[in-house]
Amino acid sequence: FSLNLAADCNAVLKALQPIFQEQGMTETVHNWEDHGYLVTYIKKNGSFANLRIHPHGLVLVDLQSYNDDMKGREEVDQLLNKVEERMKELIHVNIKRVKRLPAILRGGVIDRYWPTADGRLVEYDIDEVVYDEDSPFQNIKILHSKQFGNILILSGDVNLAESDLAYTQAIMGSGKEDYTGKEVLILGGGDGGILYEIVKLKPKMVTMQTSNIDQMVIDGCKKHMRKTCGDVLDNLKGDCYQVLIEDCIPVLKRYAKEGRMFDYVINDLTAVPISTSPEEDSTWEFLRLILDLSMKVLKQDGKYFTQ
Amino acid sequence: FSLNLAADCNAVLKALQPIFQEQGMTETVHNWEDHGYLVTYIKKNGSFANLRIHPHGLVLVDLQSYNDDMKGREEVDQLLNKVEERMKELIHVNIKRVKRLPAILRGGVIDRYWPTADGRLVEYDIDEVVYDEDSPFQNIKILHSKQFGNILILSGDVNLAESDLAYTQAIMGSGKEDYTGKEVLILGGGDGGILYEIVKLKPKMVTMQTSNIDQMVIDGCKKHMRKTCGDVLDNLKGDCYQVLIEDCIPVLKRYAKEGRMFDYVINDLTAVPISTSPEEDSTWEFLRLILDLSMKVLKQDGKYFTQ
Repeated sequence: FSLNLAADCNAVLKALQPIFQEQGMTETVHNWEDHGYLVTYIKKNGSFANLRIHPHGLVLVDLQSYNDDMKGREEVDQLLNKVEERMKELIHVNIKRVKRLPAILRGGVIDRYWPTADGRLVEYDIDEVVYDEDSPFQNIKILHSKQFGNILILSGDVNLAESDLAYTQAIMGSGKEDYTGKEVLILGGGDGGILYEIVKLKPKMVTMQTSNIDQMVIDGCKKHMRKTCGDVLDNLKGDCYQVLIEDCIPVLKRYAKEGRMFDYVINDLTAVPISTSPEEDSTWEFLRLILDLSMKVLKQDGKYFTQ
Repeated sequence: FSLNLAADCNAVLKALQPIFQEQGMTETVHNWEDHGYLVTYIKKNGSFANLRIHPHGLVLVDLQSYNDDMKGREEVDQLLNKVEERMKELIHVNIKRVKRLPAILRGGVIDRYWPTADGRLVEYDIDEVVYDEDSPFQNIKILHSKQFGNILILSGDVNLAESDLAYTQAIMGSGKEDYTGKEVLILGGGDGGILYEIVKLKPKMVTMQTSNIDQMVIDGCKKHMRKTCGDVLDNLKGDCYQVLIEDCIPVLKRYAKEGRMFDYVINDLTAVPISTSPEEDSTWEFLRLILDLSMKVLKQDGKYFTQ
């Protein structure tokens, strides 16, 4: 509860106390001089509630319980309804906002919380752990979501879902490029999405470089992300494509030396590279090196796509 | 912390106690007979921590503090690092999962948490409240997100963002329909997205029915969702479209009686209708009535699209 005015902490406490006491909860009150109240209510079954009353007008109620049964959820709803009712009686029009957040489930078999790269909390409708392996470089998970299909998660970072065709289309130039008869180099792209989509467009030859860091990513994707990669990862060679399991720097250096040129270079390497050699000490230097080498293998009217 | 084995509750408590005590926190221990420990640590500045040790092998640490300054966040990270370190020393390989969730921000000016229709917690990168009005029927919010542009939220339900062109395209038949010279009836669609996209395709006439319930939705959208609706909501009539502010049932009944026929009926009414007349007592009956009436105004080779 956000209030429009300073809270009469004592009045709020007095108003809400009976609701928790009716539940047979044991009360422990802590009263700061300047910071209001923390009241802890403990139930015999192991559940508890925290009531935090801030004097400047913020009242927070947290409930924590072990079981996730529907009966428990109904009881929680009823309790919170009573708290809301009592608060509205007490504070009337001066409640600025009432917000009830969904329960956070911890300790379950399936972890549904995968924060975004910018640190926001997102709960997915995960219903199955499809693949969960540790490589020497990273943890590789593929989780099934009803909404997004299988989702590839590398060391906790959501990478790509089977529903993310839009990502692949965007990094290929949003449908505006003609790949027919073209020479294409893909850097990274271990999920096989870009390779699969370009091969459909009758290119002359697509070369996909993917580091051995990604071997287990490929293994997982070719089994469980087939909406993304189709069958292109089943073999490392096809009519118009090849997959090189090799780091991108030596591949680019070799092609530059040989004078091998491409119509398109698509850089789908992870945003922050996993460094294997300590001499590549700075991320920016590594990114600059890749960009410089890419320009060397790009035809004069060639195009370079990246995130 | 999820453990692979039952927790020695007492050993966990003994191991973690010093970390909180070093912070100058006051400890209150509650020990259930069969449900482990709840330990509350209270700091002088109004912060507190809950340590919940479940005997079957789940250890939960919750921290709550008032200020959201970076210094506070660093302190929290350091504290949690110490807890993690100590737990790993104590339990070694038998920790199944360690998960740290981003902080939940409550009581701020901007509410970033908008749960999905299926009750999942999602935090958006909202940085501005663009529009926030109560109509007699619902609360209408338009919030700006860096990721999605302006987002329309009706009574807490995320409706449509400016980035959601894909929704509009899908309900129009995913680009596979030719609207040139066609007669189209849109039911609902108060955000103007479908109208705007179809008008671009040179139809003969598009009629959009939108109830007066949505008048304030239209007002908000025509000002703040212009990536979605362009200028089609600025006037209720254009060269090839008209907007009727009227309930959908009387509109459909009148057209059916007049023998007015359409090539396309696109039903974009909210999934669960806001009932204004009590005689429409069942949602399913209401939906069936709309479908029946829609069939009556649809040409024999016409198409009906809906969510």
